[in-house]
Amino acid sequence: MTDVDALERILRSAEDIPPERAAEIAARLEKTPIQEVVRLVERSTATRAAVVLRLLSRRRSIAVFDALDAAHQADLIDALGDRAVYEFFAELDPDDRVSLLDELPAEIAGRLLRTLDGSEREITGVVLGYPKGSIGRRMSPEVPHLYEDMSVDETMDKLRRVADDVETIYTLPIISRDRTLVGVISLRELFTAEGSAGVAELMAEPVFASAHDEAEETARWFLPLDILAMPIVDDSGRLVGILTFDDAVDIVEDADSEDTARSGAHEPLQQPYLSTPLLRVVRSRIVWLLVLAVSALLTVQVLDTFEDTLAAAVVLSLFIPLLTGTGGNTGNQAATTVTRALALGDVRPRDVLSVAWREVRVGMLLGALLGTIGLGLASLVYGLDIGIVIGSTLFLVCTMSATVGGVMPIIAKKVGADPAVFSNPFISTLSDATGLIVYFLIAKTVLGL
Amino acid sequence: MTDVDALERILRSAEDIPPERAAEIAARLEKTPIQEVVRLVERSTATRAAVVLRLLSRRRSIAVFDALDAAHQADLIDALGDRAVYEFFAELDPDDRVSLLDELPAEIAGRLLRTLDGSEREITGVVLGYPKGSIGRRMSPEVPHLYEDMSVDETMDKLRRVADDVETIYTLPIISRDRTLVGVISLRELFTAEGSAGVAELMAEPVFASAHDEAEETARWFLPLDILAMPIVDDSGRLVGILTFDDAVDIVEDADSEDTARSGAHEPLQQPYLSTPLLRVVRSRIVWLLVLAVSALLTVQVLDTFEDTLAAAVVLSLFIPLLTGTGGNTGNQAATTVTRALALGDVRPRDVLSVAWREVRVGMLLGALLGTIGLGLASLVYGLDIGIVIGSTLFLVCTMSATVGGVMPIIAKKVGADPAVFSNPFISTLSDATGLIVYFLIAKTVLGL
Repeated sequence: MTDVDALERILRSAEDIPPERAAEIAARLEKTPIQEVVRLVERSTATRAAVVLRLLSRRRSIAVFDALDAAHQADLIDALGDRAVYEFFAELDPDDRVSLLDELPAEIAGRLLRTLDGSEREITGVVLGYPKGSIGRRMSPEVPHLYEDMSVDETMDKLRRVADDVETIYTLPIISRDRTLVGVISLRELFTAEGSAGVAELMAEPVFASAHDEAEETARWFLPLDILAMPIVDDSGRLVGILTFDDAVDIVEDADSEDTARSGAHEPLQQPYLSTPLLRVVRSRIVWLLVLAVSALLTVQVLDTFEDTLAAAVVLSLFIPLLTGTGGNTGNQAATTVTRALALGDVRPRDVLSVAWREVRVGMLLGALLGTIGLGLASLVYGLDIGIVIGSTLFLVCTMSATVGGVMPIIAKKVGADPAVFSNPFISTLSDATGLIVYFLIAKTVLGL
Repeated sequence: MTDVDALERILRSAEDIPPERAAEIAARLEKTPIQEVVRLVERSTATRAAVVLRLLSRRRSIAVFDALDAAHQADLIDALGDRAVYEFFAELDPDDRVSLLDELPAEIAGRLLRTLDGSEREITGVVLGYPKGSIGRRMSPEVPHLYEDMSVDETMDKLRRVADDVETIYTLPIISRDRTLVGVISLRELFTAEGSAGVAELMAEPVFASAHDEAEETARWFLPLDILAMPIVDDSGRLVGILTFDDAVDIVEDADSEDTARSGAHEPLQQPYLSTPLLRVVRSRIVWLLVLAVSALLTVQVLDTFEDTLAAAVVLSLFIPLLTGTGGNTGNQAATTVTRALALGDVRPRDVLSVAWREVRVGMLLGALLGTIGLGLASLVYGLDIGIVIGSTLFLVCTMSATVGGVMPIIAKKVGADPAVFSNPFISTLSDATGLIVYFLIAKTVLGL
């Protein structure tokens, strides 16, 4: 750890590393575990990261580049220079290669693709052929062709020959002679089986997905099965690739980062925080802030409408942040719960009524509790009539916010929007405006203004 | 899918299933893919879930029970009856068994433990011996003993014999005769190697963790390595177990659910939303709401102090929700970004100064933009002096909130609290109070009140 920190300090202090320093740093890098070097690169600006990659041995620099996120790899392309880029690109797995291409301008992507040799280009083309966001785009097309009429011994022989060229030899799709997926067998089963047995007798019913299936949904469904990999088929059921657990982990990780970002009212950064240029951080936040500020103008409007009421009883303005805050919190609680449940598949869009009915009751219970406390406290300090206004507003606001907060993510999903967008900031802003209307209507009635 | 929905409706309509119905439902369940049955159970109340489990064949009911979360399993214990529970418990993997024990009252846990036979109890004891929250508690202790002086053929023979009793045969820790971990080899490598070669020549430097390491941190560090499993050692470097990718996925999944819940101001539910009893949902939210409402009393206090200013210029109250809302949003943006970066290891606690410096600048840029727009709009409608108050408050509030929002999660982590707690609700509530103070101080100065 300390050695990496020292390296980081050296790299930070000098943009250009003098040649005599370079040899020393290269020697230290060579002794650093690969995972630490990846971390170091992830935390550095593009220029510095390129310096590190150039000082590493060929084998290690390829491994480090391979371990970076596609967006981060794309960021390094300019700083690295063509020769290194072509080499790194050729060494990537076809699915990672496609992820990187997706991050690049079309012109650079095309140039990179042309540097590949024929078979590599062809296999990359298979993955590129599936639409963005589909599982076909994230699978590995390098899968062995094992036929149902083979024996265990024949299968093992074939595996030994192709072991270096395929993504995994642990989960093995079995196909018919026309490449239709008919079963799956694990190396573990082959390993303990009689050599003369046919794979058709040993194979199990396959868990599989279609290449056009939505990537995030498929990955979330696949991961809890605790299996290493599953075959991917085309529309006519023919084997086209395999999805391994680590690809699924990446997909879910990206989706979770996106959900977290959206529920925190900004766009995901796509690359490590400390190595993201400052203006890109600002850009990931400003649009959301503007949209939310514009929606917040609604609250100015509402308050403007009730300005006479406010002028007549200034005490009402004291509770504005408390009431809008509590409404926002209750709404967020419901929204984050349902958004997460949707992502995990625990709640389906058709459950909208069960969810609404649950949240109405939860909201009423929470509102009754908070409302009673609010009634008591506000009565003590500001008199019974204010107490009644605060107490009943809290009850109504909690009930409304919980219900709306629970239902909104489902509606978002139904209309094809990201449920996470509706989990935090929008719920707050919208519940602010409605909460204030409820508040002033109750106040006008109770206080007779 | 439709068949499962039909089953769900039948189960929902009758708490007690008449015997003549039972046979029919059992037949339909038997034809339903196992993964669908798991979903069905996850969405049902404990009583109904127990009915489903009892109607399944022995083999399938064990598989379904095994697939549930520990908290959900614990919930079913009462409804299932002792005999079924003992059977399910005996079939769980040692690490899953320990997770379930952790969810149960000590008395029931003790009784369950006593139902195990000697060797199973011993192996469960190994896992139970590590503290909660450590990776030792989540590893599998069932790992083959492969020694460095063995040849490839000897290793393969041994693996064939023990294949059914160990967690995985794909990632193989190699140990010295005193059980010290010396290397790791994959079955893939063994598979393509010469039978007479020694494993010591082929094995690689192991990626491993110590059993006392913190579980979440270890799992987050392990998953991006894209390897299937890693050995776990005790304090003297001896092999005690193995952590597989699916255990790591579960740990990270749980941690993410917790972070999401906390940043949405509630506690995680531990089990699927629709099968969680209503009062438990209320309980997961009420404490947070109360704490946040109490902190929101701060804002009432602040506004009370400035009541004279408010009475003199009621127009000031119109902007309260807009200003507190924008401050809260800016703070949350910074906080969710840094919380996620901390969780992923992109930011370490010692980076606090770099983070603060980034967020000051980001906050100033965001504040300058929003402030300028605020100045323009408010001047148009309410006059230049109000415009100046709103514009400069927005600038200061954005700068402060971004900085505090970025730094708070790191401080939380440093003092051993959950950074996610500080990512959303607390930041909002605290920035509300400080934002209001700034607002009224500026207003008093500019408006000369």
